[in-house]
Amino acid sequence: MLKLHDYWRSSAAYRVRIALNLKGLSYESHSHDLRSNAHHDPAYKALNPQGLVPALDIGGHVLTQSSAIMEWLEETCPEPPLLPPAAADRAAVRAMAALIACDIHPLNNLRVLRELKNDWQADETQTKMWAKGWIAEGFTALETLVGQHGKGYSFGSEPTLADCYLVPQVFSAQRFGVSLDPYPNIRAVNERCDDHPAFVRAHPRHQPDADTVDSNH
Amino acid sequence: MLKLHDYWRSSAAYRVRIALNLKGLSYESHSHDLRSNAHHDPAYKALNPQGLVPALDIGGHVLTQSSAIMEWLEETCPEPPLLPPAAADRAAVRAMAALIACDIHPLNNLRVLRELKNDWQADETQTKMWAKGWIAEGFTALETLVGQHGKGYSFGSEPTLADCYLVPQVFSAQRFGVSLDPYPNIRAVNERCDDHPAFVRAHPRHQPDADTVDSNH
Repeated sequence: MLKLHDYWRSSAAYRVRIALNLKGLSYESHSHDLRSNAHHDPAYKALNPQGLVPALDIGGHVLTQSSAIMEWLEETCPEPPLLPPAAADRAAVRAMAALIACDIHPLNNLRVLRELKNDWQADETQTKMWAKGWIAEGFTALETLVGQHGKGYSFGSEPTLADCYLVPQVFSAQRFGVSLDPYPNIRAVNERCDDHPAFVRAHPRHQPDADTVDSNH
Repeated sequence: MLKLHDYWRSSAAYRVRIALNLKGLSYESHSHDLRSNAHHDPAYKALNPQGLVPALDIGGHVLTQSSAIMEWLEETCPEPPLLPPAAADRAAVRAMAALIACDIHPLNNLRVLRELKNDWQADETQTKMWAKGWIAEGFTALETLVGQHGKGYSFGSEPTLADCYLVPQVFSAQRFGVSLDPYPNIRAVNERCDDHPAFVRAHPRHQPDADTVDSNH
């Protein structure tokens, strides 16, 4: 049985939950509460030296980094595919995923916002402005790419890895109060995914460790 | 002929130059001076909506995002391989690459440091501290992973994608004044790569658009 080191509101863990569900793989979720630094526990750091979530225990190996985990899923469980067959199309899907994974998410995740609060004395308005600025820059380019490649989903008419990144980033953006009005293509893909059971089951609010009352930290 | 949209000191472009050289592929370099915002030119943004480098024009398609470009190279030109054969090992290499691509580099690249200077009134000491902190956090975990997996290179005894990320990140770290003393495994891999012609030819100072006198911005 696959064991996912998870946290309900981690955007990177949310991506992997979607991919596992799309592949029809069952897994056991092991929650690490990022807010209380449970992921810095030495026992967990022995498994994952970064102490971040997600990590996927496949029995004998613990895989880390959501992008590496999802490529592993694609290689070891090819159906249904989350990448299209042609190499240039695969590159287009991976580029949309990387735009989110490298150019948006690292700038609005919990550890960076904490650093801005603690070491830069930023207040809530300033950290929100920071996060919203990077999301807007990334979404503006992503909107064009989804317009070029999407036919219902981010690329083509079936879910791909790009959607596994888009939906958690939209969830995060909405928590920061970003309006999707300037991004109709992104909004349409997100709404389409909202109707797909693999995405619904992966949603933070449907995880066993979710807060019943949402707080901001 | 492959055409690389390039900039000598871009860490992400440097990765792709190494991979192209390791694969023995010749390419034509087209430089965009990031410091003068040449990459925001509308003609370039029509090719790459993000307006970032690198992008690889393969004739008919322009591929963006270094990780997507390098996976495309691996798929279309498999020899020599930059990923090991076993799926779990491939995941380990990709995880080291993603640690750098997602958890270090996005926080110390030019656009983020500019934002801290312009919108947060950070001085040079503060932006250096910021960059050095994220590099130290990432390198501490990477040092453990290279110790677990490396035998001369980051993973095993031949160059992989992980080395294509490690060397440019070390170059960047050294510009911020990060000492490699706490990271003997990373330093040893970097020194090994310093002797490899594919890495040497990709080095920023060997690019046609390199400044003859290094400046910090």
